[in-house]
Amino acid sequence: MEIISKIPVLQERLQPETDIAFVPTMGNLHEGHLALMALAKKRSKCVVASIFVNPMQFGPQEDLAKYPRTLAEDCHKLQAAGVDVVFTPTEQTLYPEPQQVLVEPPPIANELCGAYRPGHFRGVATVVLKLFNIVTPSVAVFGKKDYQQLHVIRSMVRQLNIPVEVVAGETMRAADGLALSSRNGFLSETQRDEAVRLFRNLEFIMHALVSGSRDFAFLENNAKAELEKYGWRVDYFSIRHQHSLSPAQVADTDLVILAACWLGGTRLIDNLEVFLPA
Amino acid sequence: MEIISKIPVLQERLQPETDIAFVPTMGNLHEGHLALMALAKKRSKCVVASIFVNPMQFGPQEDLAKYPRTLAEDCHKLQAAGVDVVFTPTEQTLYPEPQQVLVEPPPIANELCGAYRPGHFRGVATVVLKLFNIVTPSVAVFGKKDYQQLHVIRSMVRQLNIPVEVVAGETMRAADGLALSSRNGFLSETQRDEAVRLFRNLEFIMHALVSGSRDFAFLENNAKAELEKYGWRVDYFSIRHQHSLSPAQVADTDLVILAACWLGGTRLIDNLEVFLPA
Repeated sequence: MEIISKIPVLQERLQPETDIAFVPTMGNLHEGHLALMALAKKRSKCVVASIFVNPMQFGPQEDLAKYPRTLAEDCHKLQAAGVDVVFTPTEQTLYPEPQQVLVEPPPIANELCGAYRPGHFRGVATVVLKLFNIVTPSVAVFGKKDYQQLHVIRSMVRQLNIPVEVVAGETMRAADGLALSSRNGFLSETQRDEAVRLFRNLEFIMHALVSGSRDFAFLENNAKAELEKYGWRVDYFSIRHQHSLSPAQVADTDLVILAACWLGGTRLIDNLEVFLPA
Repeated sequence: MEIISKIPVLQERLQPETDIAFVPTMGNLHEGHLALMALAKKRSKCVVASIFVNPMQFGPQEDLAKYPRTLAEDCHKLQAAGVDVVFTPTEQTLYPEPQQVLVEPPPIANELCGAYRPGHFRGVATVVLKLFNIVTPSVAVFGKKDYQQLHVIRSMVRQLNIPVEVVAGETMRAADGLALSSRNGFLSETQRDEAVRLFRNLEFIMHALVSGSRDFAFLENNAKAELEKYGWRVDYFSIRHQHSLSPAQVADTDLVILAACWLGGTRLIDNLEVFLPA
């Protein structure tokens, strides 16, 4: 496996490749990321991963500085996963001048996480487009854990005619159901035990929907109240249409329940897709 | 020469090509466009031109509806110029859904023409990126006539890491100096004779700069006053730094004089680069 940090070196290495599968990451890799690498490996003989903690997608009050950086361990894991090339650009490499040309994502990027993280998805869309243009993959793999991000990327690819196929990987979970996330490492032992309540509430809503409940506001408020009772701060708990991410309508069958909640100083997100009979 | 309007057909035709030179146009082709085709032909064995009057770069009060559409003549000219493929998408093909993902150009896009045509360069940048992603050229050719557009495209290519080399073609002029433009066709015979005053004023400022004058505001206002005396309405006459397009400083050596002025209902733009000794 080659670890490359300079754009011209990467481009020379990738020049003979005709079919690249690409997995962009912010590092601190867990089994969720490695499942995405496995998906990429199924799709192409040449798998490129990137590790870049993108300042542009963090707000000024967010956890950019303390975001975990574990490059050596990450590279060992990627090598074991059969990744061919890891691209590890510096901030100076990706942003040699102030980034003034931006990808403006669709309006849905201002709802859900976007309402609490202004500019976040603009930063995501811009860096992903830059990475696509540098790596020129035919396939790119993103996790469903960041469901709204996946939606924004799919919209960008479709509306900007980007010649990349987007492949989605399922969310990996711990034995108790907590979605794997780099930010889980910020949790104390007590918080870690409590954290699963997020997923339990997603599951509770899923069961209610499957059982025929369509009082979306009641289900959302119920989950919020329960989490708040246990000391969480809830950014949102929202039942949406899977494909548009607009608020669920009673007749919708393909739903997704999305949530973002704070446990102490750690913001956790999770979601659950629900397919109802038509 | 093949004329292709569907994206999948174009992509199949271009799939074996490894080195494409691309010239995007809005049609109604004149010698200026054909000079760009010749530049493209020098750079690559496969030249692709596109003809698309992009609604997204026209304001609601602008001349989208009356912009000249001359597809048959255009195709004859492109064939004679040795173009290999002409891409002629419909609006439905390029915008099958409302375009919500946008390329936000740098702040300079809100000055000069951008100050008078809000959203114009966002529309240009967005459609050019879409066309780049569809055609996947290695070289793209743009005319210096649209100097600010060229600047925006260069910024976009650099800051979004687009793997395309941008090549600039010189402005072609009529015998009297008027820059060739599709919009010249809107001029009456009297207006056509008057139109050259725009270029004459650019030349006058150039000579003044070369002779040592650095009173930029005086030169700009002088040109404006002269044009207004002859019935023009001046959007701007501005002396700028060539590379940043920021207002010229006394010590600058690479300057460009840019102007946009109305003659009756027709808006004409032109510019002149001036290189002063260091």
